[in-house]
Amino acid sequence: MYNSSVPALKRMLSSLAGILGKTAEHAASKKIDPGVFINARLFPDMFPLSRQIQIVTDQAKGCAARLGGVDIPKFEDDETSFEELQMRIAKTIAFLDSFKAHQIDGSEERDIVLQLHETRLQFKGQDYLHNWVLPNFYFHATTAYNILRHNGVDIGKKDFLGG
Amino acid sequence: MYNSSVPALKRMLSSLAGILGKTAEHAASKKIDPGVFINARLFPDMFPLSRQIQIVTDQAKGCAARLGGVDIPKFEDDETSFEELQMRIAKTIAFLDSFKAHQIDGSEERDIVLQLHETRLQFKGQDYLHNWVLPNFYFHATTAYNILRHNGVDIGKKDFLGG
Repeated sequence: MYNSSVPALKRMLSSLAGILGKTAEHAASKKIDPGVFINARLFPDMFPLSRQIQIVTDQAKGCAARLGGVDIPKFEDDETSFEELQMRIAKTIAFLDSFKAHQIDGSEERDIVLQLHETRLQFKGQDYLHNWVLPNFYFHATTAYNILRHNGVDIGKKDFLGG
Repeated sequence: MYNSSVPALKRMLSSLAGILGKTAEHAASKKIDPGVFINARLFPDMFPLSRQIQIVTDQAKGCAARLGGVDIPKFEDDETSFEELQMRIAKTIAFLDSFKAHQIDGSEERDIVLQLHETRLQFKGQDYLHNWVLPNFYFHATTAYNILRHNGVDIGKKDFLGG
């Protein structure tokens, strides 16, 4: 369970940090207000870049905390600059780094309950990881990338996959 | 390894089939040429919807075949209609259904080699699944969804996550 979660989550968060770094450089070199990218979205009722990054990090910290049976660190969701979004990603990676494999291994059958507004979702650990966390995590990571590609930032698939 | 791959891949492919079904209905009801959606892309040098679906299915069949140690079925990559894209997804799901868990379980350390044009990538099975297949698979699944959302198709996160 650890090998199926924490390393891949960390790797993608590092990729997103790199992508945001390139975007900040692009904005500076083109003299574009960073807020144009941070508030960009693909359709009026979709979330902007900042919210995509907030949800990506929420999925990552929620996953490790729930599978490891510890409290989820609370972030304020008030990031409005590239620096603040980078800090949020760095805090999430540091939280993931605080886990040893044995804390998460063996959580396949752990009961996980999510309360989303009116909806209560119940999972076993393995189902939670594979059918909730990973699709959601990659969904918002990819949408962040797509928002920036759609707005002409010079990034590519290699930036997304990292290494 | 089976539980970390085949069921989640099948679930997302079914979601994409549902999303393409809604898109075909939307195109018909608005009298929009289906090709407008099938050839839509988020930026000029990104792949259109049809290619996103081709790559999603390639990732899924390649994953099961490589981890299970069988030949990868070859598709012609010539789909130009919703019906043909749906058939491709259905063929991929049928291929995934042909695997029993024991064929894929235990493939953590299997050597996987990918030849991508000039680049040769080498993985162990677990690294291939978590750092190649899943990020790529969800990347193209999400980009297909984002292309359609960006073009005003009335789909939502629930359609993506399925159930």
